[in-house]
Amino acid sequence: MLTLAQLDRLVVILVAPRNPNNIGAAARAMSNFGYPHLRIVNAYEVSFQEARSAVGAADLLASARQYETLEEATADCTLVVGTTAVGHRELQHPLHRLEAAGTLIQSHLADADPTRASAPKAALLFGSEKTGLSNEALSHCHWLLRIPTRSEHISMNLGQAVALCLYELIRQAPEALPATQITPASAQALDRLMALLLEVLEASGYIKPDPDDTTRQKIRRLILRLSPSPDDAEILLGMLRQLQWKLRHNSDPT
Amino acid sequence: MLTLAQLDRLVVILVAPRNPNNIGAAARAMSNFGYPHLRIVNAYEVSFQEARSAVGAADLLASARQYETLEEATADCTLVVGTTAVGHRELQHPLHRLEAAGTLIQSHLADADPTRASAPKAALLFGSEKTGLSNEALSHCHWLLRIPTRSEHISMNLGQAVALCLYELIRQAPEALPATQITPASAQALDRLMALLLEVLEASGYIKPDPDDTTRQKIRRLILRLSPSPDDAEILLGMLRQLQWKLRHNSDPT
Repeated sequence: MLTLAQLDRLVVILVAPRNPNNIGAAARAMSNFGYPHLRIVNAYEVSFQEARSAVGAADLLASARQYETLEEATADCTLVVGTTAVGHRELQHPLHRLEAAGTLIQSHLADADPTRASAPKAALLFGSEKTGLSNEALSHCHWLLRIPTRSEHISMNLGQAVALCLYELIRQAPEALPATQITPASAQALDRLMALLLEVLEASGYIKPDPDDTTRQKIRRLILRLSPSPDDAEILLGMLRQLQWKLRHNSDPT
Repeated sequence: MLTLAQLDRLVVILVAPRNPNNIGAAARAMSNFGYPHLRIVNAYEVSFQEARSAVGAADLLASARQYETLEEATADCTLVVGTTAVGHRELQHPLHRLEAAGTLIQSHLADADPTRASAPKAALLFGSEKTGLSNEALSHCHWLLRIPTRSEHISMNLGQAVALCLYELIRQAPEALPATQITPASAQALDRLMALLLEVLEASGYIKPDPDDTTRQKIRRLILRLSPSPDDAEILLGMLRQLQWKLRHNSDPT
């Protein structure tokens, strides 16, 4: 189970939630289990205001932070996990059942190497009630988590889904956690890497200038799958900067 | 986790629920996880009728049975477990945390001795939203179950509490789960990737021509740390080929 310090490094992100009861229920479960950090992306303002009057989690909702984009909301996170009911969509991400996902998140957060500049931080993403996470939102995720509902009725209530995921993480596991892993770079570092890679690929003619969302999502997923460490992200940035310079320098020899 | 036959022998009993949303949420979680039998004791008739129009669990609510007393509702059960937030009340029952309670219920339901007249059947009792289970209701229970909420905020939403208990019973131990890890690319594919990356980095001026062993080893370790899948190795090779072509084409425009 997570320690207090680790609970403090797990962020719940609701993307475009519509129903104030669900926002309230998510906040209540967070309060029940001791997770303090709620972030809301692209909320319907009325829903959020109504939710603030919800029973039992007023403090938590008062300190919830709102964001315009998922990019901003995940900027400081080293692991971004999306939740999905796995319906009709073709998945292009590794998918783990909640039980295994809990173990993976725990081992990510347990890796608190004091010599490292910043501690690992994980985000758990929940999509809107009707449509779940969009493909754009999924492209921000390192991998996906599935609650083991039966195939005849996969779609869960949002507040219940949040409660189950949080419970799995504070639940006591009799078995020891696996050995620690390398902390991947933060979403912000990966965004820089992605921006520069896009520029270099454009300059080389590998992708068209001003690429569409599908192309951008493919590149983002590739980077998330490779999941470089902070040091490796720096090395890759250095390589790309040199490539960018050379491509410019060659084509414009002033 | 429970087998299908065991799910069929677990009964969820809501005692005097007031909020139709909560009855609906409990029914939805039961449907999500495949528990067919809902019993309601002393329901507020209006709430129950409203809940029947709830989304996603119409069949389950249509077959829910109503009882006047808990005695009738538990008559065929061989184990009766009460859920409690353990507030101010003095408990006169054994109390188990949800994780341990799940194991006890599983082993009770697994005990299907064919010489026995009837199979074991367990009931999970949830009290009303405001007051929980009354002392009278508790007196029907063999033992009590507590969801591990923190002491500062013990009271859970009813629909979420039902979902958590049902999940604990169908949850699998993580070590039993199949690994869904991605196979990394072969050493041969990584060697091709490394050779091409070295050429591109040379052409860009990032490394000197004919790099020494130390440089080659650094690049190889980087690729091994990134550990791309076979598909991702192909994507990266494609990018590098285009970069190589562009760097040559620009510097030697014949």
